[in-house]
Amino acid sequence: MEVSFLRKNFGERFIEDPAAALLYVRDASFIEFTNAVLGVVFPENEEEVVELVKWAIKNKTPLYPQGSATSLSGNATATGKGLVVSFEKMTKVEIDPVDGVAVVGPGVKLEELNIELARHGLFFPVDPGSVKSATVGGAIANGAGGMRGAKYGTMKDWVLGLRVVTGRGDLLKLGCRTYKCRNGYDLVRLFVGSEGTLGLVTEATLKLAPMPESAVAVLVYYDELEALVEDVVRVRASRLWPLFAEFLDAPTSALVGLEERNALFLGVEVNAGAEDRVLKRIESLLRGGIAQRALGWEGAMKLLEPRRKLFYGQIASAQREGGTLVIEDVAVPISKLPEAVRGLKKIAEKNGVPLLLGGHIGDGNLHPATWYRREEGLGKVEKFLRDMAELVLKLNGTISAEHGIGTLKKELMAMEVGEEVLNYMKELKKVFDPHGILNPGKIL
Amino acid sequence: MEVSFLRKNFGERFIEDPAAALLYVRDASFIEFTNAVLGVVFPENEEEVVELVKWAIKNKTPLYPQGSATSLSGNATATGKGLVVSFEKMTKVEIDPVDGVAVVGPGVKLEELNIELARHGLFFPVDPGSVKSATVGGAIANGAGGMRGAKYGTMKDWVLGLRVVTGRGDLLKLGCRTYKCRNGYDLVRLFVGSEGTLGLVTEATLKLAPMPESAVAVLVYYDELEALVEDVVRVRASRLWPLFAEFLDAPTSALVGLEERNALFLGVEVNAGAEDRVLKRIESLLRGGIAQRALGWEGAMKLLEPRRKLFYGQIASAQREGGTLVIEDVAVPISKLPEAVRGLKKIAEKNGVPLLLGGHIGDGNLHPATWYRREEGLGKVEKFLRDMAELVLKLNGTISAEHGIGTLKKELMAMEVGEEVLNYMKELKKVFDPHGILNPGKIL
Repeated sequence: MEVSFLRKNFGERFIEDPAAALLYVRDASFIEFTNAVLGVVFPENEEEVVELVKWAIKNKTPLYPQGSATSLSGNATATGKGLVVSFEKMTKVEIDPVDGVAVVGPGVKLEELNIELARHGLFFPVDPGSVKSATVGGAIANGAGGMRGAKYGTMKDWVLGLRVVTGRGDLLKLGCRTYKCRNGYDLVRLFVGSEGTLGLVTEATLKLAPMPESAVAVLVYYDELEALVEDVVRVRASRLWPLFAEFLDAPTSALVGLEERNALFLGVEVNAGAEDRVLKRIESLLRGGIAQRALGWEGAMKLLEPRRKLFYGQIASAQREGGTLVIEDVAVPISKLPEAVRGLKKIAEKNGVPLLLGGHIGDGNLHPATWYRREEGLGKVEKFLRDMAELVLKLNGTISAEHGIGTLKKELMAMEVGEEVLNYMKELKKVFDPHGILNPGKIL
Repeated sequence: MEVSFLRKNFGERFIEDPAAALLYVRDASFIEFTNAVLGVVFPENEEEVVELVKWAIKNKTPLYPQGSATSLSGNATATGKGLVVSFEKMTKVEIDPVDGVAVVGPGVKLEELNIELARHGLFFPVDPGSVKSATVGGAIANGAGGMRGAKYGTMKDWVLGLRVVTGRGDLLKLGCRTYKCRNGYDLVRLFVGSEGTLGLVTEATLKLAPMPESAVAVLVYYDELEALVEDVVRVRASRLWPLFAEFLDAPTSALVGLEERNALFLGVEVNAGAEDRVLKRIESLLRGGIAQRALGWEGAMKLLEPRRKLFYGQIASAQREGGTLVIEDVAVPISKLPEAVRGLKKIAEKNGVPLLLGGHIGDGNLHPATWYRREEGLGKVEKFLRDMAELVLKLNGTISAEHGIGTLKKELMAMEVGEEVLNYMKELKKVFDPHGILNPGKIL
C-alpha cells in the first residue's frame, strides 16, 4: 500500500493514527465494528479528489466517502481496509437568489445552508431528522427525505447539477444550473441515492424554494390511529397540502414529553393574513381535538419540536433498558397506514421485541424502532425486520423510504426489487466503478 | 423480415399499408420525410410489448415507440425501416385519491387525466403546450415540462414508479407507489427523458398534487424586457412563488391578439379569501402596469389562454410567408435572461433569419422560433441554431430545457455535455438496449 502519496500530498489532512481513524469508521446505525482502516483523508478541492481516485485504482484500495456519518443503514461505514474520504473541508457556499440556486461543496451542513438562505427569503426544503449535522454530500448520497417530504419531496427533487468523480477517475459535470434540463440521460438523479458507490460528489447545484409567506400548525391527539390517518387524508382532499403531517404512537409521545396518546403534528403553508381562516378550516375538518395551535412559520416549526426529539427519545429509552436502538424506515401507501401499524404491532409481539412508532403520515413513511441487548444478540430483531419487510411489501410499500440500503438492508432490498432489477443495477455499478473501489459492499 | 408474427398476433392492430403507416413516421418538428416503415403496431397490454421486443431482437428490427408524436426534436420519428409501436390503446387510468397517486397506461392523454383528477380535487401539474394531445408515455419519454414548471418542475418530479420493457426483453418493475422510495439506484428517473431509447414504458405510477384553493393572475405589458424579468424576480423574492411566469416579445404578442409590446403572464397560487390582498401585493411589486387581472383558479387559467396560442400563432405566421416553423427550446439562469434575449436578437439579425420569442421566464426557459422556406434550405437556420447554442452555453444555460434531443439536437447536446459524459451515456444505452433496437438514432 503506497501511503507515501497520501502523506506527501495531504500532510496533516491525512490521519494515520488508528485510534483517531476509528472515529470515522462507523455511522449512526447500530453496527459497531473496530476494524482498522488505512486512515482518513480530507480533500480540499476537486483536483485532490481526482488524484485520490486515481491513487485508489492503482493501489486497489477501497474509498469510503463520508459527510457527517449520520446515516442509519451502514451507508457511511468503512467496512474494509480502505481509506475514509471525509468531505468536511469542502464547504463552499454560493447563493444566487435571482437564479434561485445554491452551488455548494459536499461538506456544507444543511442547517448552515438554511441559515444563509433565510437572509434571502429562500430555503432548502429537504429536512432530515439529522439536519443539524447532515451534509449536502451525505444527503445526496442517501437521497435524504424528512418531515417536509409530504409536500417538498426528497433530495432527488432538489439537485439540479453535480460535479462528480467516477470510479474511473473521470470528473463529470452533470445536469444544469437551470430548473429545466434535458441534455441526455438524467445522470444527476442516478447519483442521488447511490450512496457514493458510483462517484464522489465534489459540488452540487441545488434548487431553492421561496420561504412561504406564513404557515399554521396544530397538535392533535387520537385514541385510534385510523381516525388520525383519515383526518390527514381529509385535509389533503380539501385542497390544503400539508407541509408536514407527523405522527407518534402513544408510548413514543410519552417519551418526548407529550400525552401518552397517538399524536399528530399537522402544518400547512398559507398566505399572510389567511392564518385564522385556514386554521378554522382545518379545525372543521379534523375529528381529533386540537391540543395546540401555532400561527406563522416560526410558530409552526416550534410546534414541531417535540417530534424532532423522536430519535433521541428512542435512544434514551433503549439505553434505560441496557439496549441498543435499531431504527427502521419503511413506507406504505397512505391508505395502508392503519393496516401497517396494526401489522407492525402484531409482528413485534410475535417476535418478542419492543416497538416504538413514529413517522411521516403525509407520505406514508414509518420509522418503527426497536432495541436489543448486545449480550442477547440480534436474532429476534432480525426476524422482526424480515417480517416487517414482508408486511410492507404485501401492502405495496417499500423497505427503504429515505434511509437507504447501506450494508444493513441489502437482503431486504433484494426481496423488494428482485434479482433481475438487481442485475441491471450491478451493470450500472460496473460502468461507473469498474474497479469496485467506491464504497464497496453498500447497496449491492 | 418475419411479419407473419405481427399479422398473426396483432391482426387489425398491425397496419401494413405504407400510406397509412406514413402518418406515424413523423412528429411535430419540421423534419419531413417519406421513408417507408415496416408498419405500425398497437399493443394492448404488457405481454404483447414483451413479445414485440423479443421479436424485434430476433429480427434485428428497430422499434419506434410513439404516443401522440407531439415532440419537437424528432424524438418520436421513425427514421429507419422499423416498426412504429403506438401506445394509443394502452389507456388504463386508476386514481387513488387517498394515496395521492394515479396508475396509468402510456397512452393516456394528460388532459384526459386532469379531467378525471379534478373530480377528486387533484391535478397532475406537468403542463406542456401540447397538453391536449400529449400522452403520459410521451411526456415520460420526453421529460416534458411546461408552464407550471417554475413551481412544479417537470416529469422527473412526478413519476414514482414505472413498468418498462428493456431492449433485452426484460419486464422491470421500478420505483414505488409511495412518494419516498430508496430501493437502490433511481432507475425510474433514468427512464424519464430517455426518449424510448432504454425501454418501453407499459405503466406509470404518477404523483398527484391537491388543487390549490385559489389563484390570482395578471397580464402586464413592458417596453423593456429587463424590467419584466426584474419584476418576476422581485415577486419571487417576496415569498410569492409564481405558479407561472410566461413571456411573449412584442411581435409574438401581436400574433396572439395582444398589444404589440413585451407581455408577462404572472400567476400565483393563494388561499381562498387571500386573492385581493395578494393581488394588491403583486401590484405593489410590479413596475409594469397591469392590463388584466384574474381572481380564482379558473380565471387565472383563462388569462393564460393567449399564451397557449403561441405555437399555433408562430406556425400561422411562418406559413403566411410560405415558411416552415423551427421552434427551439433553451434555458438560461434567470439572471441571464435579458442578456440571452438581446443575444438571440443579434444572432438572428446576423444570420438573416426571422425571430419570434416567447417562453417560461419563471424557469429561464425560452422558445426562440424562426422559419425557413424549403426551397431555400436550412443553411441559415442551422447557423443560427449553432450560434444560439454557443450563446446559451456561454451564459451557463442548456440547449434543451424540455423538448429533448431526438434526432435534431444531437450535435448541440454534444457541445454541451462533452465527449466524456456522452461516452458514459452510450455505455448505459448498451446495458439496457445491447441490440440497439429501441428508437435508434435518438439522443446519442
